[in-house]
Amino acid sequence: MSEEECVRRLNARFYAAMTALDIDEMDQIWMNTEESVCVHPGREAIIGYESIRESWAAIFSATDSMSIAASDERVSVAQNIAWVVCIETISMMLEEGLAAASAQATNIFQRDGDVWRMIVHHASPIPLRPLEEWPDTIN
Amino acid sequence: MSEEECVRRLNARFYAAMTALDIDEMDQIWMNTEESVCVHPGREAIIGYESIRESWAAIFSATDSMSIAASDERVSVAQNIAWVVCIETISMMLEEGLAAASAQATNIFQRDGDVWRMIVHHASPIPLRPLEEWPDTIN
Repeated sequence: MSEEECVRRLNARFYAAMTALDIDEMDQIWMNTEESVCVHPGREAIIGYESIRESWAAIFSATDSMSIAASDERVSVAQNIAWVVCIETISMMLEEGLAAASAQATNIFQRDGDVWRMIVHHASPIPLRPLEEWPDTIN
Repeated sequence: MSEEECVRRLNARFYAAMTALDIDEMDQIWMNTEESVCVHPGREAIIGYESIRESWAAIFSATDSMSIAASDERVSVAQNIAWVVCIETISMMLEEGLAAASAQATNIFQRDGDVWRMIVHHASPIPLRPLEEWPDTIN
């Protein structure tokens, strides 16, 4: 498998972990360092994996059901660093009904020996994409 | 000068170019490739330097006066790739008076021979920081 394909799959695995509300899988995906950075939409950066993990745990415990998929992925690989720029389409079932949002994401990955891990996730709000542009995995 | 210091200075130079509304300086700072990516706050990614340049030219021509400074910079360098996570504090003089905004940014740089250049700029809106937390260069 090419490095680009490894990174593309890890990026998809990150969104699958969010959809599964799976914090253990997040532990596998993320680089567990003080250097790790996570920007949730509309928020300041969270620094260090310990704090990032707490933020995911809080999101997962506050969420009954979430479906998130990446599309328009652009993958760049330069030696031990790679990054993916993609669109996130998020749908959540809340008590009030279905909520949906789109986000623009930049994800940076670092190769640690043979294993790629996420070191930066930056997601930011963008206008909601029309339903017909949602990824098939969400529709 | 260490690689980290080179990247830190280039990051500052990027914000100085925005403040100076200097498109020629942007041409020097950015990697001129189809792979270059720019995310303005609240917008989808712009792909390729040609389109990115047009977006800066449009912003600069619509702006009389802008002051933007980075703070809380965290610099990571891994061989030929580096990234800076930082807070942007933006103030603009408009007809209606002073407008201010904060943003969270992730900037990725690539070394091209001896020269570092920006290849990704991702800025996203965050709540406005209180005035006493603004960088000295803005106050």
